[in-house]
Amino acid sequence: MKENLRKYLVEFIGTFFLVFTVLSVVFYANPAVIGPIAIGFALMVCVYAGGHISGGHYNPAVSLAAAIRGALEWKQVIPYWIFQVLGGAAAVGVMSLFVVFPDLVPAEFSLKEMIGGEFIFTFLLCYVVLLTATSKRTEGNSYFGLAIGSSVTVGAFAVGGALCYGAFNPAVASSLWLFHTMPCTAVCVTIITNLIAAVCAALVYKFAEAE
Amino acid sequence: MKENLRKYLVEFIGTFFLVFTVLSVVFYANPAVIGPIAIGFALMVCVYAGGHISGGHYNPAVSLAAAIRGALEWKQVIPYWIFQVLGGAAAVGVMSLFVVFPDLVPAEFSLKEMIGGEFIFTFLLCYVVLLTATSKRTEGNSYFGLAIGSSVTVGAFAVGGALCYGAFNPAVASSLWLFHTMPCTAVCVTIITNLIAAVCAALVYKFAEAE
Amino acid sequence: MKENLRKYLVEFIGTFFLVFTVLSVVFYANPAVIGPIAIGFALMVCVYAGGHISGGHYNPAVSLAAAIRGALEWKQVIPYWIFQVLGGAAAVGVMSLFVVFPDLVPAEFSLKEMIGGEFIFTFLLCYVVLLTATSKRTEGNSYFGLAIGSSVTVGAFAVGGALCYGAFNPAVASSLWLFHTMPCTAVCVTIITNLIAAVCAALVYKFAEAE
Amino acid sequence: MKENLRKYLVEFIGTFFLVFTVLSVVFYANPAVIGPIAIGFALMVCVYAGGHISGGHYNPAVSLAAAIRGALEWKQVIPYWIFQVLGGAAAVGVMSLFVVFPDLVPAEFSLKEMIGGEFIFTFLLCYVVLLTATSKRTEGNSYFGLAIGSSVTVGAFAVGGALCYGAFNPAVASSLWLFHTMPCTAVCVTIITNLIAAVCAALVYKFAEAE
Repeated sequence: MKENLRKYLVEFIGTFFLVFTVLSVVFYANPAVIGPIAIGFALMVCVYAGGHISGGHYNPAVSLAAAIRGALEWKQVIPYWIFQVLGGAAAVGVMSLFVVFPDLVPAEFSLKEMIGGEFIFTFLLCYVVLLTATSKRTEGNSYFGLAIGSSVTVGAFAVGGALCYGAFNPAVASSLWLFHTMPCTAVCVTIITNLIAAVCAALVYKFAEAE
Repeated sequence: MKENLRKYLVEFIGTFFLVFTVLSVVFYANPAVIGPIAIGFALMVCVYAGGHISGGHYNPAVSLAAAIRGALEWKQVIPYWIFQVLGGAAAVGVMSLFVVFPDLVPAEFSLKEMIGGEFIFTFLLCYVVLLTATSKRTEGNSYFGLAIGSSVTVGAFAVGGALCYGAFNPAVASSLWLFHTMPCTAVCVTIITNLIAAVCAALVYKFAEAE
Repeated sequence: MKENLRKYLVEFIGTFFLVFTVLSVVFYANPAVIGPIAIGFALMVCVYAGGHISGGHYNPAVSLAAAIRGALEWKQVIPYWIFQVLGGAAAVGVMSLFVVFPDLVPAEFSLKEMIGGEFIFTFLLCYVVLLTATSKRTEGNSYFGLAIGSSVTVGAFAVGGALCYGAFNPAVASSLWLFHTMPCTAVCVTIITNLIAAVCAALVYKFAEAE
Repeated sequence: MKENLRKYLVEFIGTFFLVFTVLSVVFYANPAVIGPIAIGFALMVCVYAGGHISGGHYNPAVSLAAAIRGALEWKQVIPYWIFQVLGGAAAVGVMSLFVVFPDLVPAEFSLKEMIGGEFIFTFLLCYVVLLTATSKRTEGNSYFGLAIGSSVTVGAFAVGGALCYGAFNPAVASSLWLFHTMPCTAVCVTIITNLIAAVCAALVYKFAEAE
C-alpha cells in the first residue's frame, strides 16, 4: 500500500511540474522557441527524477501503453490516471493564485488536424517510452529521460500550434481546459486520440521488440 | 525473416518522424533556430528508440557507411534504403493531408556550394555514427543518440540554407523533392554527394579505429 | 582536513561560475531565451565536473536538503554555505572589474509571487538532486547533471522574471543583491523560501524513496 | 607510429569541424543564440566521436592541461598542437572556397577584457575536461562530451562578444586571424591567456582530485 502511495505521489508531483511549465510558457512567455524546449526539459527532468519509482509516466496515454506492454499492472492504470489528472489540476489551481485565466476561445484547428497532430506525436512519445524505458535490451541506459522529453519537444515544434494544441497527454489537455485555453470538444478529441495512439504504439512495440 | 521485418519497420518509422519533422519546420516554423534543433532532436529520439533493433540509421548514406564498416550485412543495404525512402515518402503523404505544397522554385545554391556543404556534414554524421554507435571501444555508451542527432543540428546551423539544403540524407532529399521544396537536379547532386561522403567516412573510420 | 578543503574549493569554483554566468546574461544578453539555457548549462557543467568530489551543490538550499537526506554531514553545512556565498561574491567582484553595476530598482514582484515562484522551483531542484544524485537506486547514472541543470532552466523559463527573480539559490540571491539587481527584502524572502523548499523536498524524498 | 597518426588524424578532423562551425556561424548566422549552441554542439559531437582515440582535445590549451595532469605524453604536445592548428587552417581554407573573407577590423575589446573573458572560460573548459574525461573516479561516464561542449556554450553566452572574442582555444583564435575576424594582437593575447588558464586549471585539478 505504502509502495503504491509512493508511486502515486511521484506521478502527482511530476505531472504537476509538467503542467505548471506548460501553463507558464503559454501564459507568460513567447511560446515559439521557449515553449517546446521548456516543456520537453520539464518532462525529462521529472522522468529522470521519478522513473525508478513510478516509471515516470505523468501521462495517462503512456500509462495505458505501459500496461499493454506489461510494464504497469492493469489495476494500477486507474489510480495512475487519477493522480496524473489531480497533479495537472493542482498546477492549474496554483496558477490561479497568480494569474487571471485567459478568456476561452473556440477551437482553432479542424477535427482532422487535431486528430492527425495528436496521433502522430503521442504515438512517437509512447513508442519512445516503451523502447527506451521498458525494454530489457536497453536496461540501465542513461538516455531514456532525454529521449522521452525530447520527443515532446519535437512534437511541439512540428505540430503544436500548427495542427493541434500539442498536448500529447490527456492530463495536459484536461488542465488546459481547466485553464480556459482549450475548448471542451478539442479536449475530448485530444484525449481519445492520445489513448488510441498509445494502443497503436504498444502494438508496434510488441512486434518490433519481439519480447 | 520476421527479425528483418522488425528492422525494416523501425527504419520506416524513424525515417517517417525525421522527415515529418523536417517538412513541418520547413513549412510552419521560422527555421532559423527551431529547424536545426527540432530536426536534430527528432533524429536523436529515433536513434535512441530504435538503435538496438535496426541500428537506427534512417539514412541511406549511414546504411552504406555501416555496410562498409561491417556493421550491416551488405544484403540488407537495399531493403534498408527502400524502407527509409518509403518512410520519408509516407511523411510527405501525411503532410499532403494537411497542407498545400509550396511551389517549386529553382535551386538557390551553386553546384560547388551544394557539394561542399552536403559532403562536409554528411561526412561528419557518418563518422560520428561509426565511432559512437558501432565501435567496440565505445560499446554500451549512452551518448550515441545525442552525438548523432547533434551532428545534424550542427550541420543545419553551419551550412543548411547557406551553402545547401542541409539534407545530409538521401531519404530527406528525395522527400523534399516530393514536397516541392528541392528541385530534381539538387536532389541528385545531394544524394550522390551524401553517398560519396559516407564512403569517405567509412574509410577514415577504418584507419582511425584500427579494427 | 585536506579532503575538506578540496570539497570547499570545488563548491567555491562551481558557485563562482554559476553566479558569473547569471550576472553575465543579466547584464549583457537578452535574457529571454539565452538566460535560462546558459544558466542551466553552467550548473550542469559544474555538477558533472565536481559532483564526485563535493556533491556538486553550489547552492545552500541543496546542501541543506542533502544534509537532511543524509548525503552531507551536518557539520559540513555551514562551511559549504560559506564557500558557496564566497564563490558568488567572488563572481560579483570579478564582474565589477568589467562593468558598472546597474542602479538598484525596487522589487518588481509581490511577496506572494516571489514566495510562490521560488518555492515551486527550488523544491523541484532539490527533489531532482536527491533523486538523481544521492539515491542508491540511481547510482552510477550519467544523467544527474543534465537533470539538475535543466530543472533550473525550466524554472527560469516558467517563473523567472514573471513571478520572481528566479534565483532558486541563496548564493545566487545574495550575489544579485551585491550586484544591485535585487533589493534586500526580496533577497531575504528568496533565501528563506529556498531553505523551506529544500526541507520540504527532503521530506518528500524520504517518503518517496523509502530508504 | 601508426597509432600516433590515428590520434593526429582525429585531432585534425575534430578541430576542422569545430573551426568550420565557428566560421560558419560568425559569417552566415545571427550569432546571438545560434552561435554558442552550434559551437558547443560541434565540440561535443567531436569529443564523443574521437575521445577514445585521441582524447578529443581539439584545443592546444586542453592538450597542455592534459599533459600537466599526465593524461597526454609530453612528447605528444607539439604534434597535437600542429595538427590542431592545421585542422583549423584547413577549415579556413575550405571556407575560402565559398565566401569572401570579411575586412579586418581593429580589436573591439580592451586588453583587460580579453584577458579576463578568455582566462575565466578557458579555465572552466580545461577544469571540466580534466575532471570529466581524465579522472579515474569518473571513468566510463557518458556525460563527458556534453559537459565539455556545454562549457564552451556557457562561455560564449557569458563573455563571447561582450568581453572577448570567445575563442577559449588557440587553434580557434589563429583560425579567426586567418579568416580576418580577429586582429593579430588580440590573437596573441588570447593564445597566451588560454595557455596560462590551462596551467592554472591543471594545478587546481591536481589539488582537487588528489591523485
